[in-house]
Amino acid sequence: MFEQFFSPKSVAVIGASREPGKLGSQILSNIISGQYQGKIYPVNPKAPEISGLKCYPDISSIPDVPELAVIVVPAKIVCSVIEECGKKGTKAAVVISAGFKESGPEGKKREEELVEVAKKYGCRIIGPNCLGIIDTYSDLNVSFAPVMPTKGSIAFISQSGALISAVLDWSRKQKIGFSRIISMGNMADVSESELIESCAADEKTKVILFYVEGVKDGRDFINRVSKVTSKKPVIAIKAGLTGSGSKAASSHTGSLAGMAEAYGAAFKKTGVLQVSNMEELFDLSLAFAYQPLIKGDKIAVVTNAGGPAVLATDAVEKQGLKMATLSEQTESTLKKNLPPAANIHNPVDVLGDATEQGYKVALENVMKEDNVDGVLVIVTPQTITRPLETAHVVVENANRYKKTVVTSFMGGVSVEVAIDFLRQSKIPNYDFPERAIRALKAMVDYVKVLERKNGPTVEIAADKDMVSKILQQVKKSESRNLTDYQAREIFGAYGIRGPERYLAKNVDEAISNAKKIGYPVVAKIVSPDILHKTESGGVRINILNDEEMKKSFNEIMKSVKQYLPSARIEGIEIQEMVKGVQEVIIGVKKDIQFGHLIMFGLGGIFVEVLKDVTFGIVPVDRQEALEMIKEIKGYKLLSGFRNLPEADIDGLVETIVKVSQMCQDFPEIKELDINPLVVKEKGKGTVMIDARIIFE
Amino acid sequence: MFEQFFSPKSVAVIGASREPGKLGSQILSNIISGQYQGKIYPVNPKAPEISGLKCYPDISSIPDVPELAVIVVPAKIVCSVIEECGKKGTKAAVVISAGFKESGPEGKKREEELVEVAKKYGCRIIGPNCLGIIDTYSDLNVSFAPVMPTKGSIAFISQSGALISAVLDWSRKQKIGFSRIISMGNMADVSESELIESCAADEKTKVILFYVEGVKDGRDFINRVSKVTSKKPVIAIKAGLTGSGSKAASSHTGSLAGMAEAYGAAFKKTGVLQVSNMEELFDLSLAFAYQPLIKGDKIAVVTNAGGPAVLATDAVEKQGLKMATLSEQTESTLKKNLPPAANIHNPVDVLGDATEQGYKVALENVMKEDNVDGVLVIVTPQTITRPLETAHVVVENANRYKKTVVTSFMGGVSVEVAIDFLRQSKIPNYDFPERAIRALKAMVDYVKVLERKNGPTVEIAADKDMVSKILQQVKKSESRNLTDYQAREIFGAYGIRGPERYLAKNVDEAISNAKKIGYPVVAKIVSPDILHKTESGGVRINILNDEEMKKSFNEIMKSVKQYLPSARIEGIEIQEMVKGVQEVIIGVKKDIQFGHLIMFGLGGIFVEVLKDVTFGIVPVDRQEALEMIKEIKGYKLLSGFRNLPEADIDGLVETIVKVSQMCQDFPEIKELDINPLVVKEKGKGTVMIDARIIFE
Repeated sequence: MFEQFFSPKSVAVIGASREPGKLGSQILSNIISGQYQGKIYPVNPKAPEISGLKCYPDISSIPDVPELAVIVVPAKIVCSVIEECGKKGTKAAVVISAGFKESGPEGKKREEELVEVAKKYGCRIIGPNCLGIIDTYSDLNVSFAPVMPTKGSIAFISQSGALISAVLDWSRKQKIGFSRIISMGNMADVSESELIESCAADEKTKVILFYVEGVKDGRDFINRVSKVTSKKPVIAIKAGLTGSGSKAASSHTGSLAGMAEAYGAAFKKTGVLQVSNMEELFDLSLAFAYQPLIKGDKIAVVTNAGGPAVLATDAVEKQGLKMATLSEQTESTLKKNLPPAANIHNPVDVLGDATEQGYKVALENVMKEDNVDGVLVIVTPQTITRPLETAHVVVENANRYKKTVVTSFMGGVSVEVAIDFLRQSKIPNYDFPERAIRALKAMVDYVKVLERKNGPTVEIAADKDMVSKILQQVKKSESRNLTDYQAREIFGAYGIRGPERYLAKNVDEAISNAKKIGYPVVAKIVSPDILHKTESGGVRINILNDEEMKKSFNEIMKSVKQYLPSARIEGIEIQEMVKGVQEVIIGVKKDIQFGHLIMFGLGGIFVEVLKDVTFGIVPVDRQEALEMIKEIKGYKLLSGFRNLPEADIDGLVETIVKVSQMCQDFPEIKELDINPLVVKEKGKGTVMIDARIIFE
Repeated sequence: MFEQFFSPKSVAVIGASREPGKLGSQILSNIISGQYQGKIYPVNPKAPEISGLKCYPDISSIPDVPELAVIVVPAKIVCSVIEECGKKGTKAAVVISAGFKESGPEGKKREEELVEVAKKYGCRIIGPNCLGIIDTYSDLNVSFAPVMPTKGSIAFISQSGALISAVLDWSRKQKIGFSRIISMGNMADVSESELIESCAADEKTKVILFYVEGVKDGRDFINRVSKVTSKKPVIAIKAGLTGSGSKAASSHTGSLAGMAEAYGAAFKKTGVLQVSNMEELFDLSLAFAYQPLIKGDKIAVVTNAGGPAVLATDAVEKQGLKMATLSEQTESTLKKNLPPAANIHNPVDVLGDATEQGYKVALENVMKEDNVDGVLVIVTPQTITRPLETAHVVVENANRYKKTVVTSFMGGVSVEVAIDFLRQSKIPNYDFPERAIRALKAMVDYVKVLERKNGPTVEIAADKDMVSKILQQVKKSESRNLTDYQAREIFGAYGIRGPERYLAKNVDEAISNAKKIGYPVVAKIVSPDILHKTESGGVRINILNDEEMKKSFNEIMKSVKQYLPSARIEGIEIQEMVKGVQEVIIGVKKDIQFGHLIMFGLGGIFVEVLKDVTFGIVPVDRQEALEMIKEIKGYKLLSGFRNLPEADIDGLVETIVKVSQMCQDFPEIKELDINPLVVKEKGKGTVMIDARIIFE
């Protein structure tokens, strides 16, 4: 995919320059010094030759169809250059030039024009306003990044060009290699999702890193990237999460930063691992780039120092991983072969005076243990420690047992050579043990992404015609808010019901209705003339049996007649008296990027004070709905806490899935709230008490 | 303080050795190669001379009183060596030798003996089982750490010797300097608190780092370290926080790891800044070691790249700091002097093609702005960027405006020289902007520690005699649990009361009591023969007026007589019907290290499901109590949320302070619970509903 971008046979540099310091000069010299093996065509009407290459006055004069064009001319003439490229037959262009959407209304228009021209010729564009792209395996550096990275398995896709310069420079010092570096710029045409897809298709890439301020098309992102994550890990850092942050983002590349919750939900849905800072981004990427994927969450630590092992153990617990329990056999072997003072339980402490021999004994035995999924080796430089020899032992055992191994050779000068050897041998090393454990945790998370089974497509039988009819009515009216009755009808069409209720004209009907519903019940007067039912004496709650029902019916009738003798009375509504285990809230908000976002949480203070809610993106299937329910802190209150009965989780799942389906069927839903929804005991379903829907 | 340890005029090395690789050899050679200027006396009966120094067969043969003794002999003879030192008049000893408490029961006995001998002679001991100590300004390295650190302002005190080796090695690469390095070992005699105090007294030390698994004496820690933090920042990492972690700790140095909450509360009380990993420990220390303390929480960011600035802005918000708003004047100056596309609002973006000139304009104007407390300068290496020259601009402005400045020169090779210059000029640089912001946040936290005013000593009038009397009774009985009545009496002695209640013998008394309390009231039968008051018809709630009172009184009497005609009836208790704003819980647990720990939280699910509680260490003064109340997430529910009235926070503070006083007066309190305590509306106090106390 996108071969013309990442392994083109020929590249034209339009705006190539002889003046050092100019971007057009930097880019050409990067292509040359990167040892690109294809043909290079500099284009500049004022120069016959640049850097020893024949220079062409325009694209049409090039005696070939360049597969890729890199454009570094002033913004004003970019469109005409693309037109020329199109005519020539070039199908891929990287537009470095700035002065488009990011620069104001005029630039925005120019960008729209650019896209139109490109479309006309079927020419795809990366950029504009970008740093360019690098593919280390094609020896292709069409960027003005001052550094060509070494070859590696990490693809880095960034919406910030400056970040790429910094990362490349930093990675050279850290000796981290890349397969591809892609600066996306304004994403006028080619989107982040397509680029992620293209890196997923690239066999040299093992892990895809992604710095994003705002995606181009949220739904497209979900569709494409979900498929990617089932093959390769994608790790994202979303900038502009907080209020001020997103202000900064919109003044930066003019991208509209979506709300944090929407991105969080989108990453969760697509299986993208989200990190909260740059250091984590690279820490995690090294584990994925270098090591086999972890099998489970049971971690063993081998160390020559107690302190760092305690920190590592703390980190294992904090991250929700498990310290592996070693088998008796392993422990007795360790006991036999390690000094008496050594700790043979996990974390295994070979003691400060251990050489590589101690590590060899510990590692061999720990790594062959079935109960261990991942191993952290901690080495602190003591007087007798032999870091390089110990690194050899680590590498040998990692190769032999094919388990996930990370290290924390702590220190500086004394461990430098050992760390270099580890890196060459694809063992990621971390300055401090906590960071190593964080990387293992990301692997465990990714395993869960891979294990995710897509549930069967949810099919909810619903009376869509009726909903459409109500929608028609609403569209004719001024208001976009539905009446309570209309809202209930719509939810009813999807099987989301309020309390069971029937109209009774007389005492006999009241009693038979109450029996149908089951006591206790509530009785309410139904009259178009009575607005304040309670005031009129028209409401009785907690009616327990036939006798009380009869009495209540008669009393209500009597009260109401006294209250307003002229009232037209349709009867008395007998209603289920709703008693559940817990009140919850299900809400929907249509996000500008990702579409309908379903919120779930416990009702009342849980939402209002504690903000203990979670989000999912429509369509939410049964598995996702269940995960949402389990994600909130208050979940305990649904799952049989103390004396509380277990709530009907299945029924709740069903209700969430129905709301999801409703949003799919009627995209014009803008906001929606079921608050509260009463969740009854296991097997007894849910009851919607209040609800509202707002349409666009 | 502890001059004999950190700047002794002479050092005896008992167990000095000629064999390289032996600790006794390593230590002696460290002292020599560290260029220690005092006298060095190696002691070894088998060698006439070591490393060119005259060697003595025993301590008594030394023609001088060595101020410091370093002991590296086998554990078995350490006691007799200390005896000799004592006789000689040496008052300070660092015991390197292992084989004490950490090695089992025998070692524990040996350690007790060691302490006794030392005490006899007034000789203080650091260790045993430690790596030794370093004071860079005394050129003193009495340790077997393979590296002598460069001079700096950071003191590092560690309970893990191995961690010191690693940190020293790492710091050499990172070019971080230290004033002192102290390995505490088993803390048989000199405690971590004394060592922290001694570093606070050391004028070369600006910030004290502290790796701790367990403190020696919690109360002593609080007393001493509280005084230190009002002068110098102390940053601590507590290892062994989680379950498995603390298992690892106790098998490590045999220290008894206290519970995480107790340490958290102790650090809070003493003003120690707690970090969660090693990287943070050093990141923060650099800011304190290099920069003037920040004045407030308003941060400005100057950058040449949008992406990292967005990340920095996100971090500012996440950390609870504020992005400074620049004045119109500043912004207009920036507008005039920066390129048109530059962002003149905070974060100020001088753009990717800025040289040091752009930074100069931005920094001068941002730093002289009153509204800015701290500045983060981000530099990404672009083609035109001049990192070193930009670093010079940063340093000049930092020196000129005396504000807190941190940098994130991002990258590797291109910014290395600039970062070196920054470091020499005492500007801390961080690989990524998030870490820089974290360091500023720690400074803001420390400012709050300095601003803390010690409240007036709380004096609660209490009937201690009555409590003592009850305690006597309890001590005589088998049980350590008090009866409900006894518990209420004790709380009452401190003015913590249950619902107001009076016994009424007849209807008239009932009515006058009810009036005294104020309707609504509750009426309850009082009879030694009736255990199930409700069943007997002996309880009426929500009595609203005199008439209902009369009716209830008579009905109760009638019911009870029917229920149990033989019952002896003492009367009817008229009780306040407690209605409050919120139910809370106040609990106490006596921690093995820090003494009484007071827990506060909202009642019910807040405690049980959400664990939304906070801890304070006795004595808790009014200021601390208020902070505790404000710390919990549910605080909103006390401060006038939605339709809820404002709760009586002052009354709640008073109740917490009373509980604190009670624990101080009666240290034998082991556990205590007031659950629930009803907090009424502002001005109306609190009412204890249920309570229990357990004594030791």
